[in-house]
Amino acid sequence: MNKSSRSKIRRAPKRGHYDEKSIYQILDSGQICHVGFIHHGKPVVIPTIYGRLNNKLYIHGATVSRLIVELEKGIDISLSVAHVDGLVLARSAFHHSMNYRSVVIFGKAAIVNDDEKNDALKIISDHLIPGRWEEVRAPNAKELKATKVLEITIEEASAKIRIGEPIDDDQDYILDIWAGEIPLKKMVFPPIPDTKLKDGLEIPKSVTEFIELNNVR
Amino acid sequence: MNKSSRSKIRRAPKRGHYDEKSIYQILDSGQICHVGFIHHGKPVVIPTIYGRLNNKLYIHGATVSRLIVELEKGIDISLSVAHVDGLVLARSAFHHSMNYRSVVIFGKAAIVNDDEKNDALKIISDHLIPGRWEEVRAPNAKELKATKVLEITIEEASAKIRIGEPIDDDQDYILDIWAGEIPLKKMVFPPIPDTKLKDGLEIPKSVTEFIELNNVR
Repeated sequence: MNKSSRSKIRRAPKRGHYDEKSIYQILDSGQICHVGFIHHGKPVVIPTIYGRLNNKLYIHGATVSRLIVELEKGIDISLSVAHVDGLVLARSAFHHSMNYRSVVIFGKAAIVNDDEKNDALKIISDHLIPGRWEEVRAPNAKELKATKVLEITIEEASAKIRIGEPIDDDQDYILDIWAGEIPLKKMVFPPIPDTKLKDGLEIPKSVTEFIELNNVR
Repeated sequence: MNKSSRSKIRRAPKRGHYDEKSIYQILDSGQICHVGFIHHGKPVVIPTIYGRLNNKLYIHGATVSRLIVELEKGIDISLSVAHVDGLVLARSAFHHSMNYRSVVIFGKAAIVNDDEKNDALKIISDHLIPGRWEEVRAPNAKELKATKVLEITIEEASAKIRIGEPIDDDQDYILDIWAGEIPLKKMVFPPIPDTKLKDGLEIPKSVTEFIELNNVR
């Protein structure tokens, strides 16, 4: 991916990654991103769901939403996705850290035209739960009109990853202080059927596959 | 909390909350925030850890880091914390949603002076794992010098919360389509001792209490 002074990892540069594979893996395992843009001269950060196809990210919203109305002007945006994988407890306060995987992206948004809107919405749906789109009632004309989808072309991207144990100063390893990692992981719990569910409906394939592929409690 | 046109929830206003209790609860149960600011005229979003005391948030970084160097100028920032609690699967594509709790904050950062730096770092440490600060080697003068802490006074804040089942259009409830929620939750896994741990060190109180208080796998 492109790397300018804007996206170059300065702090802990060994944790920096700029290859598409690292960046896409982090993006693809996230459920929400945080989008930053400038509104009336001030920064705004909004969490939202997204999907990815190649070097394009898709976000959507109500036609009248501030996020969408601003971004469709083609203004610059920054977008971040971050996963916390564990707390890293060192012997010194200073060397406490976190195991994480994060991506920061720079790009611009453009409105997805009506012909491609349905496909772009499917990309977002597939990102959250593959196969669900085919199981449900498709958007009708009114719903499509009420929704806008934006396509963000990734201009620059960088990933930052920390894994492993704490790294203490040499002289601190003799201290009588416990050190280690507390792993954290997002887990999936068994699905809860809607209380108004029609009798006789089985849990669908998209849900059973999602549960099989993820970390189930 | 203050609410201007900038922080007012326009989309799904019933999900909007502006009371301190709702906002602080969401902030206090997060581990990373996403900070947005303007750098060379363009938006930048960076994930980072934080702590809170009353209406102040604290973030820290290396003295030379871009995030810190920019923010200590007192520029406007926006900051968001978001938790994903579940996927909400409706009968129609359009009514698919997510259960979540998110906060968006507007404010400015100011540098924490040297006298208060140690206390501010403790606030960040306590946010991640209460009681750990007292167990470890405190920062020395060199480490404190290499670290800057910023205090962000919350000027405006809003929370957005969605809970519960999918809400479908009336006429869709008769469709033979499964609907419900897939709950998601961040879980804590048993601590992994550092491979270089001194013999005979027990898991400390901060870690056992953290595990008791959180969702343990």
